[in-house]
Amino acid sequence: MRYIGEPHHDGSVLYVSDQEPALGARVTLWLRAPLAAGVTGVHVRTVHDGEPRYAQASVDGSRTRAGGYGDTDVWWRAEITAVNPVTPYRFLLATDGGQAWLTAAGLVTHDVTDAGDFRLVCHQPPPSWMSDAIVYQIFPDRFDRSGPMPDLPDWALPGDWDRDPVIPSGSGTSRQFYGGDLDGIAGRLDHIQSLGADTVYLTPIFPARSNHRYNASSFETIDPLLGGEAALHRLSGALHRRGMRLLGDITTNHCGDTHEWFTAAVSDVNAPEREMFFFDPHTGDYESWWGVKTLPKLNWGSDLVRSGMRAVLKKWLGPLDGWRVDVANMTGRLAAADHNHEVAALLRRALGPEAAFIAEHNHDASPDLDRDGWHGTMNYGGFTRPVWAWLRGPDLDLEHFLGVPGGVPARDGLATLATFRAFASHMSWRSLTHSWQLLDSHDSPRIRTVTGSRERHLLALGLQATLPGTPMVFAGSEFGLTGVNGEHSRTPMPWNRPGEQDLATLAAYRELLGLRRAEPALRHGGLRWLHADADCLVFARETYEESLVVCVRRAPGEPLALGARAEGVYDAQDGDVIPGDGPSLRVWRLRR
Amino acid sequence: MRYIGEPHHDGSVLYVSDQEPALGARVTLWLRAPLAAGVTGVHVRTVHDGEPRYAQASVDGSRTRAGGYGDTDVWWRAEITAVNPVTPYRFLLATDGGQAWLTAAGLVTHDVTDAGDFRLVCHQPPPSWMSDAIVYQIFPDRFDRSGPMPDLPDWALPGDWDRDPVIPSGSGTSRQFYGGDLDGIAGRLDHIQSLGADTVYLTPIFPARSNHRYNASSFETIDPLLGGEAALHRLSGALHRRGMRLLGDITTNHCGDTHEWFTAAVSDVNAPEREMFFFDPHTGDYESWWGVKTLPKLNWGSDLVRSGMRAVLKKWLGPLDGWRVDVANMTGRLAAADHNHEVAALLRRALGPEAAFIAEHNHDASPDLDRDGWHGTMNYGGFTRPVWAWLRGPDLDLEHFLGVPGGVPARDGLATLATFRAFASHMSWRSLTHSWQLLDSHDSPRIRTVTGSRERHLLALGLQATLPGTPMVFAGSEFGLTGVNGEHSRTPMPWNRPGEQDLATLAAYRELLGLRRAEPALRHGGLRWLHADADCLVFARETYEESLVVCVRRAPGEPLALGARAEGVYDAQDGDVIPGDGPSLRVWRLRR
Repeated sequence: MRYIGEPHHDGSVLYVSDQEPALGARVTLWLRAPLAAGVTGVHVRTVHDGEPRYAQASVDGSRTRAGGYGDTDVWWRAEITAVNPVTPYRFLLATDGGQAWLTAAGLVTHDVTDAGDFRLVCHQPPPSWMSDAIVYQIFPDRFDRSGPMPDLPDWALPGDWDRDPVIPSGSGTSRQFYGGDLDGIAGRLDHIQSLGADTVYLTPIFPARSNHRYNASSFETIDPLLGGEAALHRLSGALHRRGMRLLGDITTNHCGDTHEWFTAAVSDVNAPEREMFFFDPHTGDYESWWGVKTLPKLNWGSDLVRSGMRAVLKKWLGPLDGWRVDVANMTGRLAAADHNHEVAALLRRALGPEAAFIAEHNHDASPDLDRDGWHGTMNYGGFTRPVWAWLRGPDLDLEHFLGVPGGVPARDGLATLATFRAFASHMSWRSLTHSWQLLDSHDSPRIRTVTGSRERHLLALGLQATLPGTPMVFAGSEFGLTGVNGEHSRTPMPWNRPGEQDLATLAAYRELLGLRRAEPALRHGGLRWLHADADCLVFARETYEESLVVCVRRAPGEPLALGARAEGVYDAQDGDVIPGDGPSLRVWRLRR
Repeated sequence: MRYIGEPHHDGSVLYVSDQEPALGARVTLWLRAPLAAGVTGVHVRTVHDGEPRYAQASVDGSRTRAGGYGDTDVWWRAEITAVNPVTPYRFLLATDGGQAWLTAAGLVTHDVTDAGDFRLVCHQPPPSWMSDAIVYQIFPDRFDRSGPMPDLPDWALPGDWDRDPVIPSGSGTSRQFYGGDLDGIAGRLDHIQSLGADTVYLTPIFPARSNHRYNASSFETIDPLLGGEAALHRLSGALHRRGMRLLGDITTNHCGDTHEWFTAAVSDVNAPEREMFFFDPHTGDYESWWGVKTLPKLNWGSDLVRSGMRAVLKKWLGPLDGWRVDVANMTGRLAAADHNHEVAALLRRALGPEAAFIAEHNHDASPDLDRDGWHGTMNYGGFTRPVWAWLRGPDLDLEHFLGVPGGVPARDGLATLATFRAFASHMSWRSLTHSWQLLDSHDSPRIRTVTGSRERHLLALGLQATLPGTPMVFAGSEFGLTGVNGEHSRTPMPWNRPGEQDLATLAAYRELLGLRRAEPALRHGGLRWLHADADCLVFARETYEESLVVCVRRAPGEPLALGARAEGVYDAQDGDVIPGDGPSLRVWRLRR
């Protein structure tokens, strides 16, 4: 294999002795350096209370040994102290070729700021179940209906599940109503579990005057059109009995204009609820999400908002095991006020140590992570976009790139790797692995549309199933459904439309997510990039005992040497060579 | 000239219409793109309340015109809103070769986090005088003595000004006392002003049991050994009459163990001052700077510290025009507590809009800048280190690199440019230009020792005099004095030792800092890098009217084309070519 060949460290257990250090704990770090890198000495630089300190590393004889895979690497070991809630660190290497820094952003021979440093995090860790999770996202109106269509409210436009296409834009988009409900979901848990998923995330289930329900009229009840609170308990109970979990979706940035808080506020300028929003004292106008007046923005400077939302988030724990937070990036932020980190912290404390808390963020969440708030983000920036740009279909014609003007760019493997690294290096290993790696969602075109083929779709799935980070599958993509935008992608599931079920895709989801579920190295192993070229990415997910080597090719290329005899694990023969044919997705196992 | 040829933007007035925007202000941005870059469309991405927004740019016909220097560039123009106190922005370029982002970190064809975005800052701006300042640093005990040696306290070891070498390490280092005083400084203002400096920064002048006075025994009086408060007023008055300014040095992280706050605290566990420090309730031990017990660390969780320090900083405004803040990077930081940003903000507010407030920070100050606190930093990371590594002498043998183990590395011009850009891209243009660019200080080896020759020393000076950022000259380096560490560099000035005055160096300081003083483009112009190779850096400092092109060569190289006929400004002939001889430092002027 043509190794990238850099000295390597990441935040995984292979390189960091304590994944959940207490403040003040001593932690052992390891660095591995290929002999060819010519490393002659190593220091670890940490930043303690704002000041850099250096600890000298020494060769770890117990890890550096002759024979077997990876054993031309020298392992260095040093002890550092987790002095602060987040202690940045990096490695200073003396090499035959001069000095170099190794940070999470890679190896450089000039000085860089601390922004890309590795991070030792002492904040309360996320619940342990999260690091094994595979998440399945459901947009409830479109998943399954347990009975006949209920009586619909005046605003709703009934849609025939298997006959009416979704309205992708315009006035009917949020009113088109298919009647999916919570008992419908409960009836499909075998399907969900068969994919390897163990966590169901539901977009909002509060009552609202739309099919998406992001404009809740109350946070106190479950929409009767979904079956109400009783159905939520039935669904949750069924999941919990299977050892599975259920996450809700909460709008901390805004509520609906029919929400009881807002109607009280808007109807009386002296109402206590008035302070919960941003009313212009002169015009009576109010702040809202992107100027959409049905979504009035919440004022987190208000104690009523704080106590109210805290109570809401706690109230539904039990049936729910945590929350995905809508528009977390804008929550608490307006002009000169920025309460975002406070809000995340106060809600996290309210939720306690066993609830998941994931922030929606569509560009760069890193300044909001590695604090005592969000556990991770929906990693559009560091995963979805690079995968799309590498694997987009040749004929794709979308207007924007998840909000970025100009459509989905075509990028090569090197640019893809550079994006993965750029984003991963600005958050801790903990935040990276707890963030959701998604190929698509209810807010985006479907991956099948982006890639334009089953073949490339499954390469994207391969990356999702094998890279660090929590896979999040948007219901329907396992059947190869398509969609050109978020609304268009909210397809009613094709349970009764066998012609729309791509069973080869379904089988690949079961196999690849099942592989992740079966292989601890894919969930908890380190990540070492081994090779990248325009059409090929090769990386290893590694524990102390073994390496799973993953090769994703979007086109044929040169064969690559594996460096030792390996066992084929996915679509691969035993041997010591990665064949050059492509498109292909292959996985091998190398034991130490 | 072999341009680096990237599309360019920076935070200077050439590219940003409003350098001090109010919150909510509309601001015009420009981007210049060489025709060869093939830019076909431009959007500006800003982040508003945590969410990206895009504004389309259009070609600015009034700037894009035929003929003259730089007129093969197309100028794009867009309007954005300064929505937040700091509004990040970047450019999305559609080009013949695909999409690219331009951030302050440069041009990339993959996605990157927001960390390197340009920043529009709405916080209260620094006082306007700061952006023209050239700072002269004085270590008072070593600058000049106005009369005979005073009666010395018991701890002091008298040194003969012109005969006794400084003790560079060990027990005598901080006790060796030469008796420099404030009236001594007042008698040398002609010298200081002749260098082009207009701002004198004094290391501490409070009473203390050391020659460096960083262990103050009081913040309420001026050390009588320096002439006391009356002498401070005489010095300040003399400076102010010349239109010059005076800055003090305050230890916000700690005080001396003989300080009145600490002696009260240590002598009575029930004293109110007890809370001002971090005492272990069991052992009575206390936190101190790097474990040095004479420097007890202040507890910024204490209201007494907050009110006490606020009063101290305000008390001396009048004679002083602001403060350099010692160990600003550690101030308010200990284990789980981090009050640093609060402290900087509360002290900044107390100082008001006309006082300078500069933070010592020896690695990466960027997370502490662009807030409502420090105006800038002592830019060791983004200026001193890269200059040292490029211009270090071949025989230099220092143990560390401003604290980094392994001595001063030898780096080429490309690595030097990469470091300049890495640090500059993580702070706003405002913070960069208000930070102090220093070649050395009382805490470092002298630049003459680092470079090993007058020739290279003056190349370093050339960079200091022409790059963005406020030059800070450590007294004595204008005479070419040497020193192997901070203590050793605290040389008594050689007023009476003509053999130690390198008059050619002195003349170059007057000429180069004078050039900065004479040329608005060197103080306020944008910065565009034009060429870099191992031995040569070329950049332009630009206003709308003209470009000053600076070429620094550490060794001979290929001649470079200037692209138009230029006027020689410093050691340069009129013409259109940069000669290849070196070492050399040359400046030309190109008019638009």
